[in-house]
Amino acid sequence: MYDSDLNDERDRLVELAMESVARRGGDISKATLATDTQVARAKIDRLFPEEADLAAALVERWFRPLVAIMEDVLAAELPPNRKMYEFFARRFDYLRALFQRDPATFALFVELGDSHWEEVRSYVDLGDHYLSEIIAQAQADGYFPGLTINHALSLINQMLVTYVQPMFLIMIPEKLSEDKLAQIVDTVFAGLSASDRGAAGVSKLRIA
Amino acid sequence: MYDSDLNDERDRLVELAMESVARRGGDISKATLATDTQVARAKIDRLFPEEADLAAALVERWFRPLVAIMEDVLAAELPPNRKMYEFFARRFDYLRALFQRDPATFALFVELGDSHWEEVRSYVDLGDHYLSEIIAQAQADGYFPGLTINHALSLINQMLVTYVQPMFLIMIPEKLSEDKLAQIVDTVFAGLSASDRGAAGVSKLRIA
Repeated sequence: MYDSDLNDERDRLVELAMESVARRGGDISKATLATDTQVARAKIDRLFPEEADLAAALVERWFRPLVAIMEDVLAAELPPNRKMYEFFARRFDYLRALFQRDPATFALFVELGDSHWEEVRSYVDLGDHYLSEIIAQAQADGYFPGLTINHALSLINQMLVTYVQPMFLIMIPEKLSEDKLAQIVDTVFAGLSASDRGAAGVSKLRIA
Repeated sequence: MYDSDLNDERDRLVELAMESVARRGGDISKATLATDTQVARAKIDRLFPEEADLAAALVERWFRPLVAIMEDVLAAELPPNRKMYEFFARRFDYLRALFQRDPATFALFVELGDSHWEEVRSYVDLGDHYLSEIIAQAQADGYFPGLTINHALSLINQMLVTYVQPMFLIMIPEKLSEDKLAQIVDTVFAGLSASDRGAAGVSKLRIA
């Protein structure tokens, strides 16, 4: 069998596995996947040699559209503020549509993501990598003066977390909007800098 | 018995109830409180007529130091950026110390808070009320031009959420610091405004 055929088969089985997870309302093993889909266990073993391969494939399937969005945005010819907005807004729109279509299944997959943090982590790291590229582009244009890329990354991740962490779609969907997201990105580009503007006060100076 | 004696007794029992929750690793009822503390059920019934009264007292006890911090900060003579920083930083410091002293018990109380959202909500609303006062003071000084207080409140709550939601202390304690909090508050004061600085692009104009 050609590799591409194998990948197609694996993809089809992952789709069935996603449906099976949604129906069961919880995590699945290779054994329950065989029961639920009537696919031969031998075939499942060939496509997913280890249990961890099935879990990794499910996580990959969840993140695939989000990775595609990030890559599209990174490749686009846009100024850095527009690029950062699109980077967050398009993923937010995608996740919100998913949430609205089926809130219970959405919550289930978010919960499963928490329990597969090791597999999820690499996608979070990939998001950080792409956001760092946007930050570097912004700094080349004079934004975020004095901050290292990593420090700007950490601050921006914190300020935008409600538009990335899917649990906020479950907790406060009515408080999240593209308009607010745009205002936060505008605030970041207008105000983020390494210079101390006094919010923390001068207690450190007094101690020194 | 005088009301103040009754309050003292209720406080003592709430302290015992907090310890009992921590020991059990889960929610308690009036019955389990009587078993755990050897306090007579009749006395517990007098101090907490309904199960909901016990739950409300536990939530009140959790939020009491946080409310005291907020009231102290609101009463302080500080410029609005300093006040907003202290408003978040002092509660963050308090919660972080609690987390560091006993991460498991901290996580337990956060989880119980989620399951008593109705009791918790009034403290969240109180926090919004106080933050609105700080925003009004800031706007009197010319900050956040063009935004309604409620809209500024929503944006600021979103940008600062990692320093308020205790689950972030559990998830990413190493990424949170007073320095970053100060830089976010500085960013908010330097950059937050109703004016469109272009992050969202002109697609709406094109549609119009």
